[in-house]
Amino acid sequence: MTPTYDPDNIFARILRGEAPCTKVYEDDVSLAFLDVMPRADGHTLVIPKFAARNLFDIPPEALARLMPSVQKVAIAVRAGMKAEGVAIQQFNEEAGGQQVFHLHFHILPRWSGVAVRPPGGPFQSADRLRPWADNIIAALAA
Amino acid sequence: MTPTYDPDNIFARILRGEAPCTKVYEDDVSLAFLDVMPRADGHTLVIPKFAARNLFDIPPEALARLMPSVQKVAIAVRAGMKAEGVAIQQFNEEAGGQQVFHLHFHILPRWSGVAVRPPGGPFQSADRLRPWADNIIAALAA
Repeated sequence: MTPTYDPDNIFARILRGEAPCTKVYEDDVSLAFLDVMPRADGHTLVIPKFAARNLFDIPPEALARLMPSVQKVAIAVRAGMKAEGVAIQQFNEEAGGQQVFHLHFHILPRWSGVAVRPPGGPFQSADRLRPWADNIIAALAA
Repeated sequence: MTPTYDPDNIFARILRGEAPCTKVYEDDVSLAFLDVMPRADGHTLVIPKFAARNLFDIPPEALARLMPSVQKVAIAVRAGMKAEGVAIQQFNEEAGGQQVFHLHFHILPRWSGVAVRPPGGPFQSADRLRPWADNIIAALAA
Protein backbone atom coordinates (compact mmCIF):
# COMPACT_ATOMS: atom_id res chain seq x y z
CA MET A 1 0.00 0.00 0.00
CA THR A 2 2.91 2.39 0.66
CA PRO A 3 4.66 3.77 -2.45
CA THR A 4 8.38 3.16 -2.74
CA TYR A 5 11.00 5.49 -1.30
CA ASP A 6 12.20 8.31 -3.57
CA PRO A 7 15.95 8.78 -2.95
CA ASP A 8 15.83 12.29 -4.44
CA ASN A 9 13.55 13.78 -1.79
CA ILE A 10 14.99 16.89 -0.12
CA PHE A 11 15.73 15.18 3.21
CA ALA A 12 17.66 12.39 1.45
CA ARG A 13 19.66 15.11 -0.30
CA ILE A 14 20.33 16.81 3.05
CA LEU A 15 21.53 13.46 4.47
CA ARG A 16 23.92 13.06 1.52
CA GLY A 17 25.24 16.61 1.99
CA GLU A 18 23.79 17.70 -1.35
CA ALA A 19 21.48 20.28 0.22
CA PRO A 20 22.07 22.54 3.24
CA CYS A 21 20.33 22.46 6.58
CA THR A 22 20.60 24.24 9.90
CA LYS A 23 21.68 21.23 11.94
CA VAL A 24 21.13 20.99 15.68
CA TYR A 25 21.96 17.32 16.36
CA GLU A 26 23.37 14.23 14.66
CA ASP A 27 24.23 10.71 15.74
CA ASP A 28 24.59 7.28 14.13
CA VAL A 29 20.89 6.90 13.43
CA SER A 30 19.44 10.40 13.21
CA LEU A 31 19.82 13.98 12.03
CA ALA A 32 17.94 16.96 13.47
CA PHE A 33 17.66 20.38 11.84
CA LEU A 34 15.38 23.40 11.85
CA ASP A 35 12.31 23.48 9.64
CA VAL A 36 12.75 26.19 6.98
CA MET A 37 9.02 26.97 7.12
CA PRO A 38 8.70 27.06 10.91
CA ARG A 39 5.22 26.81 12.38
CA ALA A 40 6.71 27.97 15.69
CA ASP A 41 10.00 29.60 16.62
CA GLY A 42 12.51 26.76 17.01
CA HIS A 43 10.43 24.26 14.99
CA THR A 44 12.78 21.30 14.55
CA LEU A 45 12.68 18.11 12.49
CA VAL A 46 14.24 14.76 13.41
CA ILE A 47 14.81 12.25 10.62
CA PRO A 48 16.36 8.78 10.49
CA LYS A 49 19.54 8.06 8.54
CA PHE A 50 17.56 5.29 6.95
CA ALA A 51 15.61 5.26 3.71
CA ALA A 52 12.08 5.20 5.09
CA ARG A 53 9.16 6.95 3.43
CA ASN A 54 7.14 7.17 6.65
CA LEU A 55 5.81 5.20 9.61
CA PHE A 56 4.31 2.62 7.27
CA ASP A 57 7.60 1.28 5.88
CA ILE A 58 10.31 1.83 8.51
CA PRO A 59 11.35 -1.43 10.22
CA PRO A 60 10.15 -1.41 13.85
CA GLU A 61 13.74 -1.86 15.09
CA ALA A 62 14.88 1.22 13.17
CA LEU A 63 11.97 3.23 14.58
CA ALA A 64 12.87 2.07 18.10
CA ARG A 65 16.46 3.21 17.58
CA LEU A 66 15.31 6.60 16.25
CA MET A 67 12.96 7.58 19.04
CA PRO A 68 15.53 8.33 21.76
CA SER A 69 16.90 10.98 19.37
CA VAL A 70 13.44 12.48 18.96
CA GLN A 71 13.10 12.58 22.74
CA LYS A 72 16.57 14.03 23.31
CA VAL A 73 16.02 16.79 20.76
CA ALA A 74 12.50 17.53 22.07
CA ILE A 75 13.91 18.03 25.58
CA ALA A 76 16.62 20.31 24.21
CA VAL A 77 14.11 22.28 22.13
CA ARG A 78 12.03 22.84 25.26
CA ALA A 79 15.06 24.03 27.23
CA GLY A 80 16.79 25.98 24.47
CA MET A 81 13.63 27.77 23.36
CA LYS A 82 12.33 28.21 26.94
CA ALA A 83 9.12 26.52 25.84
CA GLU A 84 6.31 25.65 28.25
CA GLY A 85 5.33 22.58 26.24
CA VAL A 86 6.21 20.65 23.11
CA ALA A 87 3.97 19.11 20.45
CA ILE A 88 5.21 16.20 18.36
CA GLN A 89 3.64 15.66 14.94
CA GLN A 90 4.41 12.98 12.40
CA PHE A 91 2.47 12.84 9.13
CA ASN A 92 2.05 9.87 6.82
CA GLU A 93 1.10 10.14 3.14
CA GLU A 94 -0.31 13.23 1.49
CA ALA A 95 -3.80 12.83 2.99
CA GLY A 96 -2.09 12.57 6.37
CA GLY A 97 -0.34 15.91 5.89
CA GLN A 98 3.04 14.61 4.69
CA GLN A 99 4.88 16.87 2.24
CA VAL A 100 8.41 15.43 2.17
CA PHE A 101 8.49 11.67 1.73
CA HIS A 102 11.28 10.78 4.11
CA LEU A 103 10.05 9.92 7.62
CA HIS A 104 10.28 12.93 9.92
CA PHE A 105 9.08 13.98 13.34
CA HIS A 106 8.11 17.62 13.87
CA ILE A 107 9.08 19.09 17.24
CA LEU A 108 7.04 22.22 17.91
CA PRO A 109 7.87 24.29 20.99
CA ARG A 110 4.72 25.73 22.54
CA TRP A 111 3.97 28.62 24.86
CA SER A 112 0.62 29.49 26.50
CA GLY A 113 -1.36 31.87 24.33
CA VAL A 114 0.90 31.43 21.27
CA ALA A 115 -0.85 29.57 18.44
CA VAL A 116 0.99 27.29 16.04
CA ARG A 117 1.22 29.02 12.65
CA PRO A 118 -0.51 27.39 9.64
CA PRO A 119 1.59 25.04 7.47
CA GLY A 120 3.13 26.34 4.27
CA GLY A 121 4.24 29.62 5.83
CA PRO A 122 7.11 31.78 4.55
CA PHE A 123 10.55 30.30 4.02
CA GLN A 124 13.04 31.51 6.65
CA SER A 125 16.69 32.17 5.85
CA ALA A 126 19.55 30.35 7.57
CA ASP A 127 20.41 33.65 9.28
CA ARG A 128 16.93 33.83 10.79
CA LEU A 129 17.14 30.21 12.01
CA ARG A 130 20.68 30.49 13.42
CA PRO A 131 19.88 31.93 16.89
CA TRP A 132 17.25 29.23 17.49
CA ALA A 133 19.74 26.53 16.45
CA ASP A 134 22.41 27.99 18.74
CA ASN A 135 19.98 27.90 21.68
CA ILE A 136 19.02 24.29 21.02
CA ILE A 137 22.64 23.20 20.48
CA ALA A 138 23.59 24.89 23.77
CA ALA A 139 20.78 23.02 25.55
CA LEU A 140 22.00 19.72 24.07
CA ALA A 141 25.49 20.42 25.40
CA ALA A 142 24.31 21.42 28.87
CA MET B 1 11.16 20.76 35.09
CA THR B 2 8.50 18.08 34.53
CA PRO B 3 5.92 17.72 37.32
CA THR B 4 5.57 14.32 38.93
CA TYR B 5 3.26 11.62 37.62
CA ASP B 6 -0.29 11.59 38.99
CA PRO B 7 -1.33 7.94 39.41
CA ASP B 8 -5.01 8.92 39.44
CA ASN B 9 -5.12 10.25 35.87
CA ILE B 10 -7.82 8.63 33.72
CA PHE B 11 -5.39 6.57 31.62
CA ALA B 12 -3.74 5.13 34.74
CA ARG B 13 -7.23 4.18 35.92
CA ILE B 14 -7.94 2.52 32.57
CA LEU B 15 -4.65 0.57 32.87
CA ARG B 16 -5.69 -0.63 36.34
CA GLY B 17 -9.12 -1.67 35.07
CA GLU B 18 -10.83 0.97 37.19
CA ALA B 19 -12.27 2.80 34.18
CA PRO B 20 -13.59 1.40 30.89
CA CYS B 21 -12.13 1.81 27.43
CA THR B 22 -12.85 0.56 23.92
CA LYS B 23 -9.68 -1.47 23.53
CA VAL B 24 -8.20 -2.34 20.15
CA TYR B 25 -4.77 -3.71 21.11
CA GLU B 26 -2.71 -4.71 24.13
CA ASP B 27 0.71 -6.25 24.69
CA ASP B 28 3.33 -6.34 27.45
CA VAL B 29 4.27 -2.70 27.09
CA SER B 30 1.26 -0.93 25.60
CA LEU B 31 -2.51 -0.49 25.48
CA ALA B 32 -4.44 1.03 22.57
CA PHE B 33 -8.05 2.21 22.70
CA LEU B 34 -10.36 4.64 20.93
CA ASP B 35 -10.43 8.29 21.95
CA VAL B 36 -13.84 9.09 23.45
CA MET B 37 -13.72 12.57 21.92
CA PRO B 38 -12.59 11.52 18.44
CA ARG B 39 -11.17 14.21 16.18
CA ALA B 40 -11.55 11.77 13.29
CA ASP B 41 -13.53 8.54 12.88
CA GLY B 42 -11.30 5.79 14.30
CA HIS B 43 -9.14 8.19 16.35
CA THR B 44 -7.04 5.86 18.51
CA LEU B 45 -4.66 6.36 21.44
CA VAL B 46 -1.61 4.26 22.30
CA ILE B 47 -0.24 4.48 25.84
CA PRO B 48 2.62 2.76 27.65
CA LYS B 49 2.02 0.41 30.59
CA PHE B 50 4.53 2.55 32.40
CA ALA B 51 4.00 5.52 34.69
CA ALA B 52 5.25 8.29 32.41
CA ARG B 53 3.72 11.77 32.35
CA ASN B 54 4.94 12.52 28.84
CA LEU B 55 7.95 12.49 26.51
CA PHE B 56 9.96 14.47 29.05
CA ASP B 57 10.08 11.79 31.74
CA ILE B 58 9.76 8.38 30.05
CA PRO B 59 13.08 6.47 30.02
CA PRO B 60 14.44 6.29 26.44
CA GLU B 61 14.45 2.47 26.59
CA ALA B 62 10.76 2.41 27.54
CA LEU B 63 9.95 4.80 24.69
CA ALA B 64 11.88 2.61 22.26
CA ARG B 65 9.89 -0.44 23.40
CA LEU B 66 6.59 1.44 23.03
CA MET B 67 7.04 2.73 19.49
CA PRO B 68 6.60 -0.55 17.59
CA SER B 69 3.13 -0.71 19.17
CA VAL B 70 2.36 2.80 17.95
CA GLN B 71 3.48 1.77 14.49
CA LYS B 72 1.56 -1.50 14.50
CA VAL B 73 -1.66 0.19 15.61
CA ALA B 74 -1.20 3.06 13.11
CA ILE B 75 -0.91 0.56 10.27
CA ALA B 76 -4.03 -1.25 11.49
CA VAL B 77 -5.94 2.02 11.87
CA ARG B 78 -5.08 2.90 8.28
CA ALA B 79 -6.23 -0.51 7.01
CA GLY B 80 -9.25 -0.93 9.28
CA MET B 81 -10.57 2.57 8.66
CA LYS B 82 -9.61 2.53 4.95
CA ALA B 83 -7.68 5.76 5.56
CA GLU B 84 -5.54 7.41 2.90
CA GLY B 85 -3.09 8.74 5.47
CA VAL B 86 -2.43 8.85 9.19
CA ALA B 87 -1.32 11.73 11.42
CA ILE B 88 0.47 11.03 14.69
CA GLN B 89 0.30 13.65 17.42
CA GLN B 90 1.85 13.58 20.87
CA PHE B 91 1.42 16.53 23.22
CA ASN B 92 3.58 17.45 26.21
CA GLU B 93 2.42 19.66 29.06
CA GLU B 94 -0.65 21.88 28.99
CA ALA B 95 0.94 24.55 26.76
CA GLY B 96 1.83 21.72 24.37
CA GLY B 97 -1.80 20.59 24.13
CA GLN B 98 -1.67 17.75 26.68
CA GLN B 99 -4.92 17.15 28.58
CA VAL B 100 -4.35 13.75 30.23
CA PHE B 101 -1.02 13.48 31.98
CA HIS B 102 -0.08 9.93 31.04
CA LEU B 103 2.06 9.75 27.88
CA HIS B 104 -0.12 9.01 24.84
CA PHE B 105 0.20 9.00 21.08
CA HIS B 106 -2.81 10.08 19.03
CA ILE B 107 -3.37 8.13 15.82
CA LEU B 108 -5.65 10.08 13.48
CA PRO B 109 -6.82 8.42 10.28
CA ARG B 110 -6.99 10.93 7.44
CA TRP B 111 -8.81 11.09 4.12
CA SER B 112 -8.40 13.69 1.37
CA GLY B 113 -10.86 16.54 1.85
CA VAL B 114 -11.84 15.50 5.38
CA ALA B 115 -10.60 17.96 8.02
CA VAL B 116 -9.61 16.89 11.51
CA ARG B 117 -12.27 18.05 13.96
CA PRO B 118 -11.29 20.56 16.69
CA PRO B 119 -10.20 19.17 20.08
CA GLY B 120 -12.72 18.97 22.90
CA GLY B 121 -15.53 17.72 20.68
CA PRO B 122 -18.55 15.74 21.88
CA PHE B 123 -18.08 12.59 23.93
CA GLN B 124 -18.95 9.47 21.93
CA SER B 125 -20.59 6.43 23.49
CA ALA B 126 -19.00 2.98 23.47
CA ASP B 127 -21.75 1.91 21.03
CA ARG B 128 -20.69 4.60 18.60
CA LEU B 129 -17.00 3.62 18.88
CA ARG B 130 -17.61 -0.14 18.61
CA PRO B 131 -17.72 -0.50 14.79
CA TRP B 132 -14.47 1.46 14.43
CA ALA B 133 -12.81 -0.74 17.05
CA ASP B 134 -14.05 -3.89 15.32
CA ASN B 135 -12.57 -2.71 12.01
CA ILE B 136 -9.19 -1.94 13.60
CA ILE B 137 -9.14 -5.22 15.55
CA ALA B 138 -9.90 -7.11 12.32
CA ALA B 139 -7.02 -5.32 10.59
CA LEU B 140 -4.67 -6.25 13.43
CA ALA B 141 -5.68 -9.90 13.07
CA ALA B 142 -5.27 -9.94 9.27
